[in-house]
Amino acid sequence: MFNTWENIRKTTPLIHHITNYVTVNDVANITLACGASPVMADDAEEVAEITQLASGLCLNIGTLNQRTIPAMLSAARRSGELNHPVILDPVGAGATRLRTQTALDILQTGSVTCVRGNISEVKTLIHGTGNTKGVDAAAVDSVTEENLAASCEFAKQTAHKLNTIVAITGAIDLVADTRQCYIIRNGRPEMSRITGTGCQCSALVAACIAANKTKPLAAAATAVIAMGLAGEIAHKHLLAHEGNAACRSRIIDTICHLTAAELNKGAKYEIR
Amino acid sequence: MFNTWENIRKTTPLIHHITNYVTVNDVANITLACGASPVMADDAEEVAEITQLASGLCLNIGTLNQRTIPAMLSAARRSGELNHPVILDPVGAGATRLRTQTALDILQTGSVTCVRGNISEVKTLIHGTGNTKGVDAAAVDSVTEENLAASCEFAKQTAHKLNTIVAITGAIDLVADTRQCYIIRNGRPEMSRITGTGCQCSALVAACIAANKTKPLAAAATAVIAMGLAGEIAHKHLLAHEGNAACRSRIIDTICHLTAAELNKGAKYEIR
Amino acid sequence: MFNTWENIRKTTPLIHHITNYVTVNDVANITLACGASPVMADDAEEVAEITQLASGLCLNIGTLNQRTIPAMLSAARRSGELNHPVILDPVGAGATRLRTQTALDILQTGSVTCVRGNISEVKTLIHGTGNTKGVDAAAVDSVTEENLAASCEFAKQTAHKLNTIVAITGAIDLVADTRQCYIIRNGRPEMSRITGTGCQCSALVAACIAANKTKPLAAAATAVIAMGLAGEIAHKHLLAHEGNAACRSRIIDTICHLTAAELNKGAKYEIR
Repeated sequence: MFNTWENIRKTTPLIHHITNYVTVNDVANITLACGASPVMADDAEEVAEITQLASGLCLNIGTLNQRTIPAMLSAARRSGELNHPVILDPVGAGATRLRTQTALDILQTGSVTCVRGNISEVKTLIHGTGNTKGVDAAAVDSVTEENLAASCEFAKQTAHKLNTIVAITGAIDLVADTRQCYIIRNGRPEMSRITGTGCQCSALVAACIAANKTKPLAAAATAVIAMGLAGEIAHKHLLAHEGNAACRSRIIDTICHLTAAELNKGAKYEIR
Repeated sequence: MFNTWENIRKTTPLIHHITNYVTVNDVANITLACGASPVMADDAEEVAEITQLASGLCLNIGTLNQRTIPAMLSAARRSGELNHPVILDPVGAGATRLRTQTALDILQTGSVTCVRGNISEVKTLIHGTGNTKGVDAAAVDSVTEENLAASCEFAKQTAHKLNTIVAITGAIDLVADTRQCYIIRNGRPEMSRITGTGCQCSALVAACIAANKTKPLAAAATAVIAMGLAGEIAHKHLLAHEGNAACRSRIIDTICHLTAAELNKGAKYEIR
Repeated sequence: MFNTWENIRKTTPLIHHITNYVTVNDVANITLACGASPVMADDAEEVAEITQLASGLCLNIGTLNQRTIPAMLSAARRSGELNHPVILDPVGAGATRLRTQTALDILQTGSVTCVRGNISEVKTLIHGTGNTKGVDAAAVDSVTEENLAASCEFAKQTAHKLNTIVAITGAIDLVADTRQCYIIRNGRPEMSRITGTGCQCSALVAACIAANKTKPLAAAATAVIAMGLAGEIAHKHLLAHEGNAACRSRIIDTICHLTAAELNKGAKYEIR
């Protein structure tokens, strides 16, 4: 499965990001770290041209605004026409009507390959409203060992309804299409105290799918495993006085060095 | 006094930031580091909804523009209606008419709980024009041991005129309401060579007041002490070849681990 | 030659940046690290006032948009009137018409002192179209030992046609005016895997020229050498598990400590 990871470094796909200004630098650096190449461009007048040069598009609505929403839609449509993979990170869907509606509008273009979000965001896309607390998932929505069977079923049904792959990340990650669901137990709880680990995960999904267009489910699962494993390895390297800022850098550094063999050894997943 | 610090971790307040794109990532990570939760959103169409979800609002005009100014005013008004604390960081007030006027317009909403800025920025809010050199205070304005009595008096009068708490940071920090002024001598001169230490201090003030709404003056002083002490501790951990980029990370890491007991031991302040 | 470097710390020039939101924090921190002072402001209503306060202007079109393009042109014109140095970083020129046209429009103001870009971007400014792959140079355009004589000639001719100094960075860097071309062999290949090393180099060029207005060619060459040498020194300090995120911080840290004597010792350049 993890030759999908090596394919990023073999093909160095160019990924077009229209993303938020909070975590954009980390998104660019992790895209480079995994072996892909990032280009950030969000003006409506140029996004179609940029998307055309790229091998994949990653849309993140973390700091969406009236200027960038039309740019996202335009880039999504152009990517759809070109058959490029499109990843949607619906940051904060459920927190405001603007976010929920924009995420739905992007899905409506029919070009989205994979949605990567937390459970509250993904539930919002299905139910129209959600329990999102700002940009974090609500505890009541959490995927747990107790509700795992039902959660897997929900992930598959969501994949069916949205007609995309769905990657739901949290303490337990689920990556599903209509038939299969990867249950992934990599990662560290500390990752939720670093801004942008979700955004960076979406960037890895984009790079991984762009480099493995015929196996998008395995590619998305590989990206989610890689992010979780990077969190674990980064945590091991932390010194006693280091915290979330050091951990943030070390996650990116870990992705720089991460090999398919290490992924194979460190991955904790099952498929249902 | 420093149970105010522990209250952040007990209550994990959600803080809505409308802030500049230069230091936004550091602001998000220090908000997480202190135990609060950040949400960045600046589109006029959604800020009122976001503010409603949050427990506090932090407005920073560092890269204000025609699109975000109305969003700031709208969020400030909504926070005022909800009785949420609002922190204003008037970055560069005095440097341009747009900044000075925007800071005054935000104050005019009557919702601001605390202004956190350098001395030149704060003087601008009182006198209408200032000596701000870009985003740095002018040397002529500095709070020094020589002018300390007059500076404390100025801080208290400013608190009276603006009807807010005032936190003036620099080599010596002053945090005042109309009756009391904390004089704080924590911090390191190197902090002025790292971009965003002021913005991060404002973020800590927002988190601290949101978690201690009944004691806003002690809360603001705690935040300013925490930022200074974090700079001191971070500086101790620096290796010989490290500089402002490493120090930036280490300050956030220090905030991650900082306890009320350490604050109590390291705080250098008096009240006049 | 390298007293140009010390002049930054002696004069602490204020540099006005209108730059992209991907690498803006690194740009601010490296500006501080070299001894200058950054101010970021991009609203059309205030840029002329900010530019007037500053000693130099650095325009970077990495995430240009309809709002910031007029601000860049306005700031460029005002800087031209004031005889302040203006540095243009034409990020992605050649990738889209909007970028190519905006770079040409800024050059058209007649105020640009130095263009700092990769070879594909610079060729685009001369030929109207380019081979830019997103924001990276195309391999076919590379400056190599084989085409070095022709490349130097191209750099000088470009300086003539654009009426600016030209700094073309890559595996081999060229910094030229119409008569002389510095050939610089500092740097590390890993630097191309860190986002923003080009943007940061432009920031150093701006600081260096602002502090040495009468020797802009030597100043620009000094900045390019400093950036390359910082990459070399940063690379030496990297631990085995560290990657592009750590290297990014260490480059800025290295600039913090870099002296004229170290530059003199580590510089690898010739003049043709």
